[in-house]
Amino acid sequence: MNTSIIRYVLGQVLKIEGLFMLLPCLVALIYGETSGFAFLGTALASILIGYLMTFRKPRSHVFYLKEGCITTALSWILLSIFGALPLWISGEIPSYTDALFETVSGFTTTGASILSDVEALSRCMLFWRSFTHWIGGMGVLVFLLAIVPLSGGSNINLMRAESPGPSVGKLVPKMRASARILYAIYLFLTVLQIVLLLFGKMPLFEAICASLGTAGTGGFGFLNDGMASYSPYIQWVITIFMILFGVNFNAYYFILFKQFGKAFKMEEVRYYFLIILAAIGVIFVDIADLFGSAFEALTHAAFQVGSIITTTGYSTTDFNLWPETSKTILLCLMFIGACAGSTGGGMKVSRFVVLAKTIRKEFHSYIHPRSVKKIQMDEKPIEHEVIRSINVYCVTFFFLFCLSLLLISLEGYDFLTNFSAVTATINNIGPGLNLVGPAANFGFFSDLSKYVLMFDMLAGRLELFPLLILFHPSVWKDMLSRKRSAK
Amino acid sequence: MNTSIIRYVLGQVLKIEGLFMLLPCLVALIYGETSGFAFLGTALASILIGYLMTFRKPRSHVFYLKEGCITTALSWILLSIFGALPLWISGEIPSYTDALFETVSGFTTTGASILSDVEALSRCMLFWRSFTHWIGGMGVLVFLLAIVPLSGGSNINLMRAESPGPSVGKLVPKMRASARILYAIYLFLTVLQIVLLLFGKMPLFEAICASLGTAGTGGFGFLNDGMASYSPYIQWVITIFMILFGVNFNAYYFILFKQFGKAFKMEEVRYYFLIILAAIGVIFVDIADLFGSAFEALTHAAFQVGSIITTTGYSTTDFNLWPETSKTILLCLMFIGACAGSTGGGMKVSRFVVLAKTIRKEFHSYIHPRSVKKIQMDEKPIEHEVIRSINVYCVTFFFLFCLSLLLISLEGYDFLTNFSAVTATINNIGPGLNLVGPAANFGFFSDLSKYVLMFDMLAGRLELFPLLILFHPSVWKDMLSRKRSAK
Repeated sequence: MNTSIIRYVLGQVLKIEGLFMLLPCLVALIYGETSGFAFLGTALASILIGYLMTFRKPRSHVFYLKEGCITTALSWILLSIFGALPLWISGEIPSYTDALFETVSGFTTTGASILSDVEALSRCMLFWRSFTHWIGGMGVLVFLLAIVPLSGGSNINLMRAESPGPSVGKLVPKMRASARILYAIYLFLTVLQIVLLLFGKMPLFEAICASLGTAGTGGFGFLNDGMASYSPYIQWVITIFMILFGVNFNAYYFILFKQFGKAFKMEEVRYYFLIILAAIGVIFVDIADLFGSAFEALTHAAFQVGSIITTTGYSTTDFNLWPETSKTILLCLMFIGACAGSTGGGMKVSRFVVLAKTIRKEFHSYIHPRSVKKIQMDEKPIEHEVIRSINVYCVTFFFLFCLSLLLISLEGYDFLTNFSAVTATINNIGPGLNLVGPAANFGFFSDLSKYVLMFDMLAGRLELFPLLILFHPSVWKDMLSRKRSAK
Repeated sequence: MNTSIIRYVLGQVLKIEGLFMLLPCLVALIYGETSGFAFLGTALASILIGYLMTFRKPRSHVFYLKEGCITTALSWILLSIFGALPLWISGEIPSYTDALFETVSGFTTTGASILSDVEALSRCMLFWRSFTHWIGGMGVLVFLLAIVPLSGGSNINLMRAESPGPSVGKLVPKMRASARILYAIYLFLTVLQIVLLLFGKMPLFEAICASLGTAGTGGFGFLNDGMASYSPYIQWVITIFMILFGVNFNAYYFILFKQFGKAFKMEEVRYYFLIILAAIGVIFVDIADLFGSAFEALTHAAFQVGSIITTTGYSTTDFNLWPETSKTILLCLMFIGACAGSTGGGMKVSRFVVLAKTIRKEFHSYIHPRSVKKIQMDEKPIEHEVIRSINVYCVTFFFLFCLSLLLISLEGYDFLTNFSAVTATINNIGPGLNLVGPAANFGFFSDLSKYVLMFDMLAGRLELFPLLILFHPSVWKDMLSRKRSAK
């Protein structure tokens, strides 16, 4: 195994994180907050350690799938470990486990919090929480690819391990250009949302935090009542942008290069909007009599549906109090998730579309046993390998889900709390139902449960295998033998 | 489509059901119950209609997979419709929907009841409920194959549609001989259980009903407190026989022909016992302090685990009151179910074993991307087609599960009730948790929900596609065009 490249990339990641941390320092400077020193210290330490790790150039730039997965998993773990330090050092979150939970939740764009009173946090801390969403949304390694030249040609294995969805479509032949285009679209949409929110008279700081959290489909709040106190205009802007950030970014690429036909024919995106409209419709009817006007009910229905399917997790109302049908629909949306190639989590619309097509094919084979028909997506046949990997993903997902559910159930909370806590973390949503509903938080869980849920958040964000592979005995054997031979 | 053979087989099924109904008539005669007339009338009507339907011989005995599925689905629907008549005509269950629910629940070996006071039923009715389990357990079409010579050679399509599990292993080359061997083993084990229960001083009538329900892994009770009032000896006999009826019957076949090596090497059976032992162990620790002695706790743990994993559904205690971990384990066992080729329901141990192996293979392919390794079961490679059909089965299962959950949620009961009601019916278990727990019943649901759950029970018993195929438009087009061309 090429351990030197792993070390090298991890060092680069630490340097980038250090640089990113200078932004909350700036926020602290503006608002005159002492917590800024915690960021400054961690930033300098990260950069220093990163510099030491990248001092020696790697012997080879070749990246196989295994190295790609291990690098990705370790990068995200390292990011979280360092990212949690300022929260803990500043004393704003006294327990390191809690700080780590909050940071993992941030980078994985989950948005599940252990805090009951977010307004007590300093501004630089609130900014950092939202900013981790933005970093995690598009991926730190994709960012790395965009700025650091990593020759070798196997970088696709890095990007594949970090990008959400069953298959990574390279936008352009060069990885570096692809990564830059992705980040450019991402940045443009984020700024556009900030501007539109400012039009609605949202304070600048809040507009920035809200937009960073929307862009990464994260969902950390910065007010104790979530998004409930904002005007319908602001709520609708956020709704629309949440849904936009859940769209496969390839669509924006097509639009950018005026290939509108291609953009509007993307099957996944069409089903995504269809599911959103259907869910809003049914929930609107179901909750209509809970609110004063039809418009208010529609606003809440659209906001919550957009928030949950894109796995953002913002809320304008406590949907835990909604009727059972609406809650069950939201729970189903949690699993479906956003489009592949977006910043959203969940199992992804494209996977469900492909799976639904395998069912249709099965019916067809019962009726016409001798016919051979390939499943198509976007008018192209899907390779057997893709279907196989989707199936194995789903199976692994449910095994991990059940195992987590069992571990969480040791604490003895009710089934809906446990079930929705695992659902909300493994799908990177944030709030669940009942004790972990939108008006509550994850603080009451034991440390063991918190680590289980952190693991689920990372597994969900990295689409299982890149993280799970770390536990394969052969990886450890490989690493140890490498070290021994290096001596 | 060969509609004449479908008609012919349905007629035979009705005749068999009519003959089976003479047994409760006998019970009514012994105990002097007037409800016996309802059975006698229905029996005679069934035999008469069956006779009319089989009067004209089918033009051809050829059975394709499609005809096999349709025949199976319609047979089970017809069986239930006629089987429910005596319950309704006698007035013992005043609503026909309720009577149908009870009968579907019986034939599909679910054991979910709408009755709050089973002891109010007459003896012949209690016998019939348990007997439907026994008929449904091994399958009425398998019975038909065992007694009626249906030449043509394609009978495997009938048996395949009715037998549980991902692949039907013919025991011997001739279908008829296979079916007879299966029923012989089934009958022998049932009688053995009755005898052992009589040793424990269980009254004969109760021993027969308990054994019929155990053999079919059904679970209808005949006492209001389930199996709670029996001695530990009786509870352990039932525990052991529930577990035995959940074993793949191929194992008994091997033992019958002294191929012990083959029997004990069956991977599915080994994992089945492993899961049972592990579940009993954990639950025993979890509930130990709820009961007076360790032996009592062990008895309850073993009984409930055996009852749930085999999808029988008997209970000796209200496990709804157990700690969360034990309830969650039971909920997981509900999905796993028994072995393929047994009388039990659920998704089947073999499916989970194969799926777990696909995960292991996936890890292997991440580590060694170029290696090609086939998944093996019982030391033989598994064909790609089998894995594909297992995957599509699971996907269809979860789609149907979510759809049912949404429909049930319209009534507004809590999530655990809805979730476990669908789980308990689609997996043919019987009791769920909370409002449908072992101490409760399904009577409070609306008719709509009852029909949804009946559908789930049938879909679960017939392993989805044979029932779902009825809704495929081409099947109806085919039937109608057939009729028109016949004019």
